[in-house]
Amino acid sequence: MSSERTTGQAGEFELIERYFAPLAAKTEGAFGLHNDAAVLPLVAGERLVATVDTMIKGRHFLDCPPDLVARKLLRVNLSDLAAMGARPFGYLLASAWPLDVEESWIAAFAEGLAADQAIYGVALYGGDTTATPGPMTLSLTAFGRLGGAAALDRGSVRPGDDFYVTGTIGDGYLGLRVLRGELEGLPAETQAALVARYRLPEPRLLAGQALLAEGIARSALDVSDGLAADLGHLLEASGVAAEIDLASVPMSAAAAQSLALGGDPPELLLTGGDDYELLFASDPSQRDAVAALSQRLGLPIARIGRARAGSGLSLRDAAGAEVVLGKPGWTHF
Amino acid sequence: MSSERTTGQAGEFELIERYFAPLAAKTEGAFGLHNDAAVLPLVAGERLVATVDTMIKGRHFLDCPPDLVARKLLRVNLSDLAAMGARPFGYLLASAWPLDVEESWIAAFAEGLAADQAIYGVALYGGDTTATPGPMTLSLTAFGRLGGAAALDRGSVRPGDDFYVTGTIGDGYLGLRVLRGELEGLPAETQAALVARYRLPEPRLLAGQALLAEGIARSALDVSDGLAADLGHLLEASGVAAEIDLASVPMSAAAAQSLALGGDPPELLLTGGDDYELLFASDPSQRDAVAALSQRLGLPIARIGRARAGSGLSLRDAAGAEVVLGKPGWTHF
Repeated sequence: MSSERTTGQAGEFELIERYFAPLAAKTEGAFGLHNDAAVLPLVAGERLVATVDTMIKGRHFLDCPPDLVARKLLRVNLSDLAAMGARPFGYLLASAWPLDVEESWIAAFAEGLAADQAIYGVALYGGDTTATPGPMTLSLTAFGRLGGAAALDRGSVRPGDDFYVTGTIGDGYLGLRVLRGELEGLPAETQAALVARYRLPEPRLLAGQALLAEGIARSALDVSDGLAADLGHLLEASGVAAEIDLASVPMSAAAAQSLALGGDPPELLLTGGDDYELLFASDPSQRDAVAALSQRLGLPIARIGRARAGSGLSLRDAAGAEVVLGKPGWTHF
Repeated sequence: MSSERTTGQAGEFELIERYFAPLAAKTEGAFGLHNDAAVLPLVAGERLVATVDTMIKGRHFLDCPPDLVARKLLRVNLSDLAAMGARPFGYLLASAWPLDVEESWIAAFAEGLAADQAIYGVALYGGDTTATPGPMTLSLTAFGRLGGAAALDRGSVRPGDDFYVTGTIGDGYLGLRVLRGELEGLPAETQAALVARYRLPEPRLLAGQALLAEGIARSALDVSDGLAADLGHLLEASGVAAEIDLASVPMSAAAAQSLALGGDPPELLLTGGDDYELLFASDPSQRDAVAALSQRLGLPIARIGRARAGSGLSLRDAAGAEVVLGKPGWTHF
């Protein structure tokens, strides 16, 4: 792990020793974080998958408890690995801390990482710690393993494929609206449920791994920018069009309550973000396999439409009428 | 590669397509940057090494040409791989761009990456592109391969080992002082040579690979925080002390000229940073092998001292008198 000294308080070396080295203590190849680089463990016949995501204070999070910032940072990366069907094992952390950061904030941040390390079986392998004159900027590179020869590539959707999503759509975005004070009419427990979905996504690792290993899906991604925008990426990469049935897009009870309160139309949920559910495309011959997977995992998986030759997204309501989306994706502003 | 839309100018998706996708175009496993994660190529019997370093505008660089910012960002990471004896093959880029960044800046930045990709045989595998309300923050994760079973661990120095450094020490720090206008009395070409060393370090990849493959070194690191500070890390990790002969620390003609101009003592060069030379420890039985390596690579390698039982750094001048350092390491402020 590389680092820099800062003026005032504990230097970065002390911070690494106190809070980050324990996260790597039992990990061979992490060298107790005192080397310039880490040696990653490989398994014969498997491939290594890598992804990186950045969270910036004021842009990707506001006044969020530090342990939840850490866990979301890790989980959005694990969600990317889930979309590839990979099994996570480790990560690097590049952190840029403002000069006035409280040491207790960093301590709680490291506790959040420790909690999710235990849940997901991952370990810290190294990183970079620096100070920044700007907002706290946290960049995490996650590593996973992939068996066999295939991967869930975004460019593989074929006309005739079914589209599916796991879980429910829109809760993360509504959680952000709760935090902004826009949904104060909702019951407190509904607000809390939505905020929890925004702050602590659940990467759909088991679903992604099964979609790949069992040959169920051809193509997958995790929904982070909003279902409509991310579906658009899948369509562009594959050179196909999509017909989506709005009534089939799965919505939680909390989301339904929220839409009713604001008088908002259901398509609003497709333009939010922070879902971290999997969107995938499968051959129609896989419908029974998808249903069996859903049951086995105890995870709802909804068929929301189909791919067609052509380009673009066509969204239809229950009566078959075209629905026009206000904006295609969430901008995090 | 994950990304976000920004308001105004080209969105991040367009930036990725225009400037970053070409850097990954021929790379299997990068999926043209349209997937959530990359699949890294592995070779049977080899291990994978990963490292990450961040550069922040105003802290790690000021008004530097964008192609040189890109190349330094890549090279400081390659330097970390060199210290492990690894052979680089690829990288991920997490970039946070201010909202007012010029597209031409990003274009030139990508050109710098392309130039160094050709020199070092590395390719872009993926990354994350976002906007930031703060200063430009660029984080690069580099990957290399390592054959055999060993690695150059910092914690392996033994009492009696010799310490060596490649190249010359202090030029990078003096280059920074030139940029600050502190060495205006130097001839223009001397100034330019020092600035070039600051802006465009040369990762000592071949030296690091040979030190590992030929069993010459026990322990190595790249000098980034200053020779005294980085040597301190090696001593701490290994639980040994060092005696360093100040007169043996290699100095360029430009550095000698610069010290003479400012009336600065030579130990100043040990407290600078940005050298990106290798510091390593070897058993004295390896002296002939080190000399042969130096000759083969056409790279000066100087023996600067030795490890002793105990702790701490003892620096001595040519007369054997103890030299006290003003500050142990450079802080990048």
